[in-house]
Amino acid sequence: MTIFSRIIKGELPSYKIAEDDRFFAFLDINPITWGHTLVVPKIEEDYLFDIDDDMLGDMFKFTKRVAAAIKTALPCRKVGMAVLGLEVPHAHIHLVPLKNEGDLDFKKKIENPSPKKMKEVCELIAKSFK
Amino acid sequence: MTIFSRIIKGELPSYKIAEDDRFFAFLDINPITWGHTLVVPKIEEDYLFDIDDDMLGDMFKFTKRVAAAIKTALPCRKVGMAVLGLEVPHAHIHLVPLKNEGDLDFKKKIENPSPKKMKEVCELIAKSFK
Repeated sequence: MTIFSRIIKGELPSYKIAEDDRFFAFLDINPITWGHTLVVPKIEEDYLFDIDDDMLGDMFKFTKRVAAAIKTALPCRKVGMAVLGLEVPHAHIHLVPLKNEGDLDFKKKIENPSPKKMKEVCELIAKSFK
Repeated sequence: MTIFSRIIKGELPSYKIAEDDRFFAFLDINPITWGHTLVVPKIEEDYLFDIDDDMLGDMFKFTKRVAAAIKTALPCRKVGMAVLGLEVPHAHIHLVPLKNEGDLDFKKKIENPSPKKMKEVCELIAKSFK
């Protein structure tokens, strides 16, 4: 089972933002900016573009709602997106609030993000999710 | 009119990969890897997540077809994706063939990509588009 499936099942803790019957959103535990969120399908599909067309379309509609919540909760110009997917074999979309183009840089992790601040950010975004 | 609208209309040249009635795909002129492609809607929408749900879903179905063409044409593990969108006010999805996680790095541009190689890569991907 992937680490994301264990998070979805609640076997591992996460800063959960939102879920529906097919998708789950939670804060990246190694954020590159505050509010950096992951959106994953509940099924274990390794490669995003192997997800069938209808579900892929729905995944981005769900992702759009999460992005809107991030933008409402945190000051930013836009919410950027990235899919890399070579490390964890469970497709995931990164959502990153952007103030500048350079903010989408996976080498710039926030060092030791405090659990208190993570919880605050999580609650702010979760509260804005519609 | 945005620079992408001028490309779509053919007023500016591009290495075109594919198009349908609503979307257009072409090589990024400042590629970070060979095969780095942009997918844009033909309408001028600045922010990807302002695109309405149905069209957004369809845009990712089109993007999936372009990603499949890239993966067929060029050796890579997966095709990564990014949306930044703070520079050109016309939503665009970057597709980047990945061999390693670090390949999705917008600071690593290919220096002076030769038009000959760009044309070859473009034709390879366009030929694989289904």
